[in-house]
Amino acid sequence: MKIGSIEAGGTKFVCAIGNEQLEILETTQFPTTTPEETIQKVIDFFLNSGVKAIGIGSFGPIEIRETHEKYGFITTTPKKNWADTDILGAIQKSLKVPCSFTTDVNASAYGELELSKKAINSLVYFTIGTGIGGGAIQNGQFIGGKSHTEIGHGFVKRHPEDDDFKGICPFHQDCLEGLASGPTIEARTGIRGEILAENEPEHKVWDILSYYIAQAAVNATLTLAPEKIIFGGGVVSSSLLEKVKTQFLTLLNGYVEVETLDEYLCLPAIENNASATIGNFALALEKLNK
Amino acid sequence: MKIGSIEAGGTKFVCAIGNEQLEILETTQFPTTTPEETIQKVIDFFLNSGVKAIGIGSFGPIEIRETHEKYGFITTTPKKNWADTDILGAIQKSLKVPCSFTTDVNASAYGELELSKKAINSLVYFTIGTGIGGGAIQNGQFIGGKSHTEIGHGFVKRHPEDDDFKGICPFHQDCLEGLASGPTIEARTGIRGEILAENEPEHKVWDILSYYIAQAAVNATLTLAPEKIIFGGGVVSSSLLEKVKTQFLTLLNGYVEVETLDEYLCLPAIENNASATIGNFALALEKLNK
Repeated sequence: MKIGSIEAGGTKFVCAIGNEQLEILETTQFPTTTPEETIQKVIDFFLNSGVKAIGIGSFGPIEIRETHEKYGFITTTPKKNWADTDILGAIQKSLKVPCSFTTDVNASAYGELELSKKAINSLVYFTIGTGIGGGAIQNGQFIGGKSHTEIGHGFVKRHPEDDDFKGICPFHQDCLEGLASGPTIEARTGIRGEILAENEPEHKVWDILSYYIAQAAVNATLTLAPEKIIFGGGVVSSSLLEKVKTQFLTLLNGYVEVETLDEYLCLPAIENNASATIGNFALALEKLNK
Repeated sequence: MKIGSIEAGGTKFVCAIGNEQLEILETTQFPTTTPEETIQKVIDFFLNSGVKAIGIGSFGPIEIRETHEKYGFITTTPKKNWADTDILGAIQKSLKVPCSFTTDVNASAYGELELSKKAINSLVYFTIGTGIGGGAIQNGQFIGGKSHTEIGHGFVKRHPEDDDFKGICPFHQDCLEGLASGPTIEARTGIRGEILAENEPEHKVWDILSYYIAQAAVNATLTLAPEKIIFGGGVVSSSLLEKVKTQFLTLLNGYVEVETLDEYLCLPAIENNASATIGNFALALEKLNK
């Protein structure tokens, strides 16, 4: 049996076909343009593929309450043309298969849980790229009471050498995303993050970013007490993660026990952000078996 | 049928006997001294009371994993004599009734859920007093993967007029508890909080505290998306809560929808911090019926 995954990102869509073992058999990706054009490409990809169910992990904010009249919609996004888009409805109507629906980061979190072979029951997945998002799971449930988590917009304390930087979040200015997302690197240094990472791995901006990301990890640790925290997204290299680990220990200061730091704060278990695809496959299978 | 509640606080213990309707029939309280003396008083109170089950809500950190060898222990508390105390074991051994075991703030959160008549499925309960603690529930489960939440020690951003205050948390210095717990008022002003509240309700320290408490509410909103956030503890008056609401709206800046602010950010539904007692009764009944 074949199943599908749609990772609906604000920049690009990644569609994949897999099997019941959650193996990726085929994949395609295209830029996110208008909803009509982009969703049509999704439909074209899956139309004669034979998938029996599809998992959709979407950028947000989205409506995830199944009883809500806007269930399946991308709701109030500032992304041009995409506010109030019934993405789930459009896909289900054309492809006529059951579809699960959650955030892209929840899908990634779920994928990481699957990839752990269910050795753990709880985790947090952060993606640190153009923006900062997060998904979290506890005992098989996504964290989120009446909606999905937006953990990337929480407030953190300032790095002492970063007082002059105002932050770039259009909503909150100096929330986590406003202080530690990829574009903050260029906003501080005038140099794009990828280029700075290659040429100046010792630039102090990496200490500043890791200080904020470490606080995200501390706050998630104290609030959710997960068994693992995973950092995906373009900003997080293995060298940055090492800095994050050091800052994390300093900031947490032994207040709660962390058994094995290297197993607690990790990079994704699979490359190319494919955790979301694996998670979507697993969620699609669950939807089908319900 | 009678059931019992033990609210085991770091300063005092409150014991109560109630009925299946979760009504409080009898209550007693005494200061927290040594474990031996304090637990003996608990046992004396309940010994011939006829309670069929007891709910224990304890100060922490505590071990709540039922499969752990230290389940039921107060673990690494800095409180003198109380580290590594098997409080659950001592009580069960003497009273020979089933006992539920969670944190005092989880018990309060559970009590508030009961008092809402289960109109909601998720909430966060903060207590802001000598320290800051919090408990949270989603779909009947306490938030917390491998342990209970310690949300009161998360990091927040500084109030612009509070830059010189170092914070008083012995672990984290300027975490939420270090910046907004009751003793920070005297640390900043030299005047005890109760006295300042009575004599100087317009002192700027109240704006500073409400700025931090509002961030706790924003971070909890973004991370957990609860249906309600409740503020108990001696520091939170109705006038402080009004300041918190104003700051909350400014800080959140419309990023997620909050339908009715006055129903979202609230004082406890019951006076004298009795939410924990109600929660303990309900948890004891569940333990009995399992």
